Amino acid sequence: MIIPFVSSLNTQEEQDWVKALSSALPNESITPFSKLSKQQKQTAEIAIIANPNPDDLKQLPGLVWVHSVWAGVEKLLQGNATPNYSIVRLIDPELSRTMSEAVLAWSLYLHRNMPDYRMQQAKAVWNPLPYVPAPERKIGVLGLGELGQASAKLLKKFGFSVIGWSRSAKDITGVECLNGQDGLDDLLSQSDILVCLLPQTPETEGLLGHENLSKLKPGAELINFARGKIVDEDALLHELNVGRIHHAVLDVFQYEPLPRSHTFWTHPNITVLPHISAPTTVESAVSIVAQNIRNYRHLNMLPATVDVQLGY
Amino acid sequence: MIIPFVSSLNTQEEQDWVKALSSALPNESITPFSKLSKQQKQTAEIAIIANPNPDDLKQLPGLVWVHSVWAGVEKLLQGNATPNYSIVRLIDPELSRTMSEAVLAWSLYLHRNMPDYRMQQAKAVWNPLPYVPAPERKIGVLGLGELGQASAKLLKKFGFSVIGWSRSAKDITGVECLNGQDGLDDLLSQSDILVCLLPQTPETEGLLGHENLSKLKPGAELINFARGKIVDEDALLHELNVGRIHHAVLDVFQYEPLPRSHTFWTHPNITVLPHISAPTTVESAVSIVAQNIRNYRHLNMLPATVDVQLGY
Repeated sequence: MIIPFVSSLNTQEEQDWVKALSSALPNESITPFSKLSKQQKQTAEIAIIANPNPDDLKQLPGLVWVHSVWAGVEKLLQGNATPNYSIVRLIDPELSRTMSEAVLAWSLYLHRNMPDYRMQQAKAVWNPLPYVPAPERKIGVLGLGELGQASAKLLKKFGFSVIGWSRSAKDITGVECLNGQDGLDDLLSQSDILVCLLPQTPETEGLLGHENLSKLKPGAELINFARGKIVDEDALLHELNVGRIHHAVLDVFQYEPLPRSHTFWTHPNITVLPHISAPTTVESAVSIVAQNIRNYRHLNMLPATVDVQLGY
Repeated sequence: MIIPFVSSLNTQEEQDWVKALSSALPNESITPFSKLSKQQKQTAEIAIIANPNPDDLKQLPGLVWVHSVWAGVEKLLQGNATPNYSIVRLIDPELSRTMSEAVLAWSLYLHRNMPDYRMQQAKAVWNPLPYVPAPERKIGVLGLGELGQASAKLLKKFGFSVIGWSRSAKDITGVECLNGQDGLDDLLSQSDILVCLLPQTPETEGLLGHENLSKLKPGAELINFARGKIVDEDALLHELNVGRIHHAVLDVFQYEPLPRSHTFWTHPNITVLPHISAPTTVESAVSIVAQNIRNYRHLNMLPATVDVQLGY
C-alpha cells in the first residue's frame, strides 16, 4: 500500500530514507510526498515523516497515524492545532546509546577542563589546573525520558554524582530524582554541569531563561543537546559574560544551521556543535519503523503515541 | 626516625608533601633533603622521593630503599648506574582511576571528532561529520601495567573495541593482548586510536619513531600519557604533516614544561596538555606511602620493588 514519506530533507537524504524503508517494507510502496497523486493523498492511512511541513500533512485527510524517524516532533504540534492523526516518535535504543555517549563525552570534556586547556594552549601557557575527582562533580540532568534516563545512568555508572529532574516523578537507582519548580531550583543550585535533554513543549520553551539560569551556582557549565528554543540565547550570553556560566556546549539552536554571523561561533566560552550529539542512523531507525508498521498491518497494534497536550 | 624527603619540587609543593607525610607518620621525622645534617645523611635508611636529583641520593649511603610518590622512576635509572637501594614506586588505585578516566575522556574527544568540530567552529562551518559507533572504533593500548590495564578495561566496558600490547604476555578479558615486535606491528596497523601508557625504559625510549609510526593506519590518532621520550617528536611531526596521523593528544614531552617556542603549541593537529592526565593527589599518595613505611617498620615488609633492569 502507499505510504507517503513527508520530510524537509534534501533530495539525496530523502532518497536514502525511501530506499532503505522500501527494502525493509517490500509489501509497501514508500512514496515521497512530492510524487503522490491526488488520489494517493486522499487514501494514505500511514505516513513516515522527517521534520515535515505540517501543512503537507493537512493534505493527507485519511491519515490514522504518522511515524517520525526522529525523537523530537515539536514542529507538528506548534500553534493550537490538534492533529487528527496519532503521532509515533522514534524510540531507538541506538539513539539512547549515541546520546548517552555524547553526554558522557562532553561531560568529560568539561570535567577535565578541555576548553580551558585549549585556551591556554593558544597562549602557550603551561598551567595544570586543579583536579576535581568525578564523584565530587555533580551533574544535573534535565529531562528523564528515554534519552535522559540512559544518560543519567551512564554518568552514574562512570562515577559522577548525578541528579535528575523531570515533569513527573521518576525513580532511577543511584540518581536523586526531583520534580516540580522547587525540585528545579534545587537542581540548578547544585549542578556543576547542567545537561538539558528535555523535549520541546510549550512548558519547556524558554525554560532556561534569565530567571532559571541565574539560579545556577557560579561557574556552572551547560550542555544543551535537546532543542535550541529551550534556552534563551540572550540570557545564556548574559550569564556567560558575567561568569555565572563558565562554558556552554551547544548542539542545538533557535535556528539551524546556526547563521554564520551569530555571535555564538566566536564566543570563547561556547562550544558550537552542528546538531551531532545523537545522529539517527538510517539503518537502525528503519528497522524500528518497519517493525512498527508490520505490527500495525498484521496485528493492528500501534506503539505508544505522543500525548498532544504534553508534546512528547 | 629521620626520613629524608628528596625532590625537585618547588618550596611550596615540598612543604605540602612534608606536612601531609608528617601528619600521616607521627613517629617519623620527615625532613627535606636541604635541611639534613651530615650525620642524618649518613644514617637515613628510607627516603621518600619526588623526581629527585640522583646525585642527592648518592649522599645518603645508608639507604635501604626509597619510596617514590609518583609512578614513574626513570630518572633514577639513567646512565648505567645501578642504585644500591631498592626503589618502590607509587601504585595508587586513585592514580589508576584518574588515568583511566583521562584515557576514556581523550579517547571520546577523538572518537567524537572534537578537534575537527573546534576547527570548523573557528571558520563558522556547520558540517556534521560521519558518526562511527564505538564498537567499530579500535583503540590500541601500549603498555599493560596497572595504568594500561585499568584503561583498557574501562575503554572495553564503555564499548570500544580494544587491543593491548606489552613486553610480556598478558591476559585481560575482552581485550586482545599482543606482545613482541610482530604483536606491535599488528597493533599499529589496526588501531584507530593509539594510547601510549608504557614506562620509560631503555627499550621504550624512541619506540614511537619513524619506523613504528609509519606502520599506523592512515588517519590514526595518538594519545601519549606516558613519557615524552617514548615518542620521537620529529617523527610525530612528520606523520602529522603527511596526514598519516590525524591528531595527537600529548600530555608529556621531551622537556617539561614544553618550551614556549616549541612548534607543538601552535600545531593545528596537536592538543597540548600540561602533564595533567593523572594528577597525583597528595592525600591518596600519602596514605599509601605511610602504610608501606609502617609495614616496613613493624613487619619488616617491603612492597614490590622496581626491577632495575626492566626499569619499572
